[in-house]
This record gives sequence, structure tokens and C-alpha cells, in this order.
Amino acid sequence: MGANAHSTNASERYLLGIDGGGTTCRALLVSSDNRVLGRGKAGPANPLRDPARSFRSIAEASKIAFGEAGLSDSDMQRTVVGIGLAGVNVPAAYEAIRNWRHPYHSLHLTTDMQIACYGSHGSADGAVIISGTGCSGYSSISGRNRVHGGFGFPFGDKGGSAWIGLCALRAALLAHDSLGPPTLLEDSISLFYQETGIGIVERLANAQPYEFGQLAPLVFTAVANNDEVARAIVVDNADHISAMARVISRLSPVRLSFVGGLSATIEPWLATDVRELLSPALHTPLEGAILYARDRIEHG
Amino acid sequence: MGANAHSTNASERYLLGIDGGGTTCRALLVSSDNRVLGRGKAGPANPLRDPARSFRSIAEASKIAFGEAGLSDSDMQRTVVGIGLAGVNVPAAYEAIRNWRHPYHSLHLTTDMQIACYGSHGSADGAVIISGTGCSGYSSISGRNRVHGGFGFPFGDKGGSAWIGLCALRAALLAHDSLGPPTLLEDSISLFYQETGIGIVERLANAQPYEFGQLAPLVFTAVANNDEVARAIVVDNADHISAMARVISRLSPVRLSFVGGLSATIEPWLATDVRELLSPALHTPLEGAILYARDRIEHG
Repeated sequence: MGANAHSTNASERYLLGIDGGGTTCRALLVSSDNRVLGRGKAGPANPLRDPARSFRSIAEASKIAFGEAGLSDSDMQRTVVGIGLAGVNVPAAYEAIRNWRHPYHSLHLTTDMQIACYGSHGSADGAVIISGTGCSGYSSISGRNRVHGGFGFPFGDKGGSAWIGLCALRAALLAHDSLGPPTLLEDSISLFYQETGIGIVERLANAQPYEFGQLAPLVFTAVANNDEVARAIVVDNADHISAMARVISRLSPVRLSFVGGLSATIEPWLATDVRELLSPALHTPLEGAILYARDRIEHG
Repeated sequence: MGANAHSTNASERYLLGIDGGGTTCRALLVSSDNRVLGRGKAGPANPLRDPARSFRSIAEASKIAFGEAGLSDSDMQRTVVGIGLAGVNVPAAYEAIRNWRHPYHSLHLTTDMQIACYGSHGSADGAVIISGTGCSGYSSISGRNRVHGGFGFPFGDKGGSAWIGLCALRAALLAHDSLGPPTLLEDSISLFYQETGIGIVERLANAQPYEFGQLAPLVFTAVANNDEVARAIVVDNADHISAMARVISRLSPVRLSFVGGLSATIEPWLATDVRELLSPALHTPLEGAILYARDRIEHG
């Protein structure tokens, strides 16, 4: 039987990488010799926020990837999974996933930060700052792993889209009541929700981080239209990321990368000295999840 | 039968005032000639946050007041209720309470802001700023009612204990990671929770506003110990309340009062010109709920 006939080779093993964040969960299925077989995408997977939805998103993204590969559910039993999730640096969220009765051969669980680090540098060592729905830094230097910032929205995760969206909403509501400077954000947020004032509040009471994150693009649009309030929000968040990069660089990581869904948009706003510290990521966090799984298989 | 024998006078009517906020729900039961018969206190009653818990808190505070008065459940049918609740300026939360199959003769529902206004001035007209778990302004001038600020935590309600507590937590977590200036809040918050860093996050993921509000006293303690970070938080929040007072005073209310659980603590931090604008409240918001009910009985 040829090496390419994955779906009929009973001894074939598969590797599934999963990258779960506050807005999106992605899956990547590869063969043991690293050929891409399928990809999948689903909603939020942050088990600290919503464990049930996280399981659904992970299963959905995985199912799509297996479907694209032409593989069946039974092939999941021959699949080793590397999975990095937001929120699992909190022990209760970690345990919720650890206790999951998953359908795979085995599952290696870590944070979204560690798979981003593997992806960025192609190995365990290095440092990353991730700006997506949340924002945090992570360094792995001489065997010591550290988290910088993060801590979860709304008390931490400054520099991510949820925080930026929340700042925008606050500014819009203050402007609405003449309690803050006028801003284009007032109109653009009202247009986004087709609501004003208290109608927006009704939509967002008890909202999840990704719902605030949906407002972040409006901030960058307002900046492009010379809105000073929006500009101050971006500068404040970029300065926080610059401060994080300086703290991490003092630890002398081999390489420092800036990744995540919002990183390309924010990078031009970082301090010049900070931008010079950054090295481009070699792979995506999703590929990092595969690398992490391979590392665990080899080193246990 | 004597006028004092309330529990045996079948024609006697009672008035129950209820004041429900993000942390506490209070009840006050009076006779038709305004003698205090009983008081009760229970947990949060903000139906926008948690309708089921709001109903429980209202029922519990009411039951305690009826018990203290020596009245039975059947007396509830002879009781007119005036109730002011946080969150019911949002239509869905208002409807949740309106549709409640309550045990009373009748129930007159409004916002926590309007009963505070009735209480402060002894009538419908005037203006108030309320700083409790949340913070908002309310004015009733020449028959026009307006809300100023508010909008709900965490996108609004700056100047209330929840917002101040959230600012404190953010500052403590930034200091923890050397991403912000050192502050006494780092130690005092860790001591409060008997946790550090990620352990605190685990406690507060998906927390309600009153849980953040519990941290506000630590901020004022840190200020008393010359902590600059805590001082900046208090100044920023007090400045917001001063701005709100100036916006309201431009509408020329008969009187403007500053009330709520945090008002006495924050008042010394308001701008001098703003403090001169303030008139002391004549009654509590809870007494305002009784006044509101009497007004509704008379004017429908």
C-alpha cells in the first residue's frame, strides 16, 4: 500500500494541532511525515469562560479537518493531538480539559502561549507576545517558562482586541452623555449594533470577550479618519505591548516574536526600539501545536 | 379596634419600599400613616445581571421586613410596593420584573436612580448622582427625566465601587508583572483573596460587579498609606463624578444631591466648585421608594 493512501493504511498515525482562543478555534491535521491533510475552524475555545462551548468548538474544528482529509471518526483513535488553549493557565480550566473523555489516541494540552512560542521559533525556546482577543507575553528561556501580563479580560489582557473594544465602547458612551470628548466611535459603534446608548448596553450585558473584540476594527478605522480618542486608545495599548517586550527582552530570549490576529495591525504602533527586537515567526501557532505534540511524543 | 393594631385591622393598608442595587437589596415597611413597621436586607438585585437572584433578594428582604413587623404573608396582599432597581433602565430587565407574579396588592416599578431622586428631594423634581456598586446621574427637571452616565459595568459606571475595584485589580496585576508601577494594592489584594496572580484570576473569571466592588475599600486604605497608584484611581473616578455634576448643573435642577454607599467616601475628592453645588439628601433612596409609591397611588 502506497505511503499516500492515508485513509486505508491501518498503521498510519496522524497529528492534529489545535489552537483555541477567545474568538476562534483552529485545527490542522497532518500525516506522520508532515503533509497537510485537512484544516478546520470554529468558534471560541477558552475553557475558563465557557467549558461546554470550548469542547464544542474543538470537536467542530477537528471534525471539519478530518472531513477535509477524507478520514473517519475511527481515524481519531490513531491521532495524537497537540492542543493550546486560552485560559488553561488557570488550574480549574486546565483540569476541565484534562478530564475530557476525548476520541483521540492521546492529547497533549498546553496554553495558547506555549504553542505560539513553538510556532514562532520552531522549538521550545524563545519568547512571544500574542495579541488576539486577549494579549499576553510568554518566555521559555533555559528551561524556565514565564507568563507576562495576560490574566484575562477585563482585569488584564490589555493590548488585545477585547480590551481595545471595551475602551472604544466606554469612550463612545461617555461622548454620548457629554462626559467625554466627542469621537467618531459613537456613531460607528451605534451603526455596528444598530442601537444607541442603553440599547447597546442591553446587547452587551454579560458579553464574552470576543463580543468586545468585534469593536476593535472600528477603532483602527476611526484612527485612519484622524479621531484623537481612537488614536489615544491605540497608543495606550501599543505602549503596553512595548513595555511587555522590554521586560521580556531583559531576560535575553534567543528570539522574540509578535503574533496573533491583531499583531500585524498593532505592530506599526510599537516603539522603534521594540520593533527592532522582534524576529518574524517561523510558523503559525497552529503549526506550533503540531511541533508541541511531536516534542511530547519524543520526550514524553 | 385601635389604630396601632396593624396586624388585626383587616382594612389597614401597608407601604413597602424596596431599593435594589448591585450589592444589596433593602426593604422598608411602613403603615399608611408612615410609621416604620419593619426593615429587611438581602443580596444583589440587578435584574439585568441575574433576574433569578434579584427575585430571591427582593423576596428575602421583604420577608424579613414583614417578619419584623409581626405581619404575615397574607398581609402582603394589602401592601402597595414602590420598588427601584438597578438595571431596569434596560427594557428587557424592566419587563422581567413587570411580568413577575408578585404577592402584593400592587407594585410600582422604577429605577434605583428615580427613587434616589425622590428620597433626596422629597419629591419627583431634582437631580442626584449615585455612587454605589455602579455610578450614574439622574435629573428630573420640568417633567423631563434624563440619565447621565451609568450604562453598567464594565463599560460604564465609572465612579462606582465595581469600577474602582477593577482599576485596583488591573494595577495590582500589572505591578505583579513589572508592567506597571509598584503599588500597595498588589499585597492588599493578594491578602484579601489569599491568592496571587493567576489564583486571583480564577476567583474572578465571570465575576459580578459586587465582587469587584469588594476591592474598593482597599483602594482608600492604600491612599491613606500614600500609595500613588491608588490615589490616581480615586482622583480619576472623582474627576468623572465632578464632570457629571457640572453637566447636570447646567440643566439647573432645583437641588442636586450625591448619594449611595460610596458617596461619603468619595465626596472629599470632588472639585471644590462641585461640592458647593451639592445639597444634602432629605431622605434615603429607600424612603424615596415609599414616596414614589405614594405619588403613584395619588397620581396613577
